Amino acid sequence: MAEHRRVEMAEALALGPGWRHACHVLLYAPDPRMLFGRIPQRYAVLMQMRFDGRLGFPGGFVDAQDASLEDGLNRELREELGEAASAFRVERADYRSSHAAGRPRVVAHFYAKGLTLEQLEAVEAGAPRAKDHGLEVLGLVRVPLYALRDGVGGLPAFLENSFIGAAREQLLEALQDLGLVAPDLLSSLKTPAGH
Amino acid sequence: MAEHRRVEMAEALALGPGWRHACHVLLYAPDPRMLFGRIPQRYAVLMQMRFDGRLGFPGGFVDAQDASLEDGLNRELREELGEAASAFRVERADYRSSHAAGRPRVVAHFYAKGLTLEQLEAVEAGAPRAKDHGLEVLGLVRVPLYALRDGVGGLPAFLENSFIGAAREQLLEALQDLGLVAPDLLSSLKTPAGH
Repeated sequence: MAEHRRVEMAEALALGPGWRHACHVLLYAPDPRMLFGRIPQRYAVLMQMRFDGRLGFPGGFVDAQDASLEDGLNRELREELGEAASAFRVERADYRSSHAAGRPRVVAHFYAKGLTLEQLEAVEAGAPRAKDHGLEVLGLVRVPLYALRDGVGGLPAFLENSFIGAAREQLLEALQDLGLVAPDLLSSLKTPAGH
Repeated sequence: MAEHRRVEMAEALALGPGWRHACHVLLYAPDPRMLFGRIPQRYAVLMQMRFDGRLGFPGGFVDAQDASLEDGLNRELREELGEAASAFRVERADYRSSHAAGRPRVVAHFYAKGLTLEQLEAVEAGAPRAKDHGLEVLGLVRVPLYALRDGVGGLPAFLENSFIGAAREQLLEALQDLGLVAPDLLSSLKTPAGH
């Protein structure tokens, strides 16, 4: 999934049977706390460490038995996150974008779902007891949405980790479009200094 | 902490008052499960995503009030991991190595502690309720100790993430010295192909 291009949902749904569909979701909730008493956390945004050592979003492949993309996504969420994922349902209204990759033929649909902080904390608390924990999922992590004084620690350093497929682009798009980070932090990321 | 050199514990303890001491621990437990029904997990090994977007081990700075390095480490573990960390105590016998860095002057002491899988799972289950969760600690992750068929996914890809200070070296040393991964996987990592 190193090479991927953005496609519209209609185009994605018209792809032939040789294509597999995957759905992933960014779960987020407002977080009023301050790091070190002075850095606003703004939101809690969840990603997960995957079995392959890379960061990605909860979700997975849609099966032929799933009645819809969203049915497949919500089924995967219960397997990966446990019962707390039954307290909400990711719907087509939460859909954001699709990316297609050629080898193997996978089209990845991306969603973002706003939760209450209590719902998100229940997901974190229950995830270690989920079916896939310690196997396909190695742990949930929150995304730092700030930059520390050195300008690197926080979101910039986080983005230097290993990501699966389009996950890094999906994260940045969602942070911008949903207004989850300060605009000046995002614009500073677009002109990388150290690369 | 980009530049760091290995020092003996006695040398580290003789460093002047301008040096701060930090202690971190690798917690591990045997895990008999198989990923995808065929890849042995071998052990569950814990690291954490830190507030600065980098992976590291649980632990932190030793305070003047701490009676010993290990007292400081165990206090930090309760703050970062919650009450489940009270079920065990990391001792001097679990000490493995020290690394010193110049700017700022920090000497980082590293420990490894074997737990039962039940103790480690209790740490994972309780960590989201710990004092530092969502602030200094963004989540616990297990380290994949295998390589997938492509030779990259798993431990090799995990090692491409961002690590704080000496954490990556500490991880590799402990995996080798404690025999937590297959020897042929470690030797393949020492001759990187893609770099």
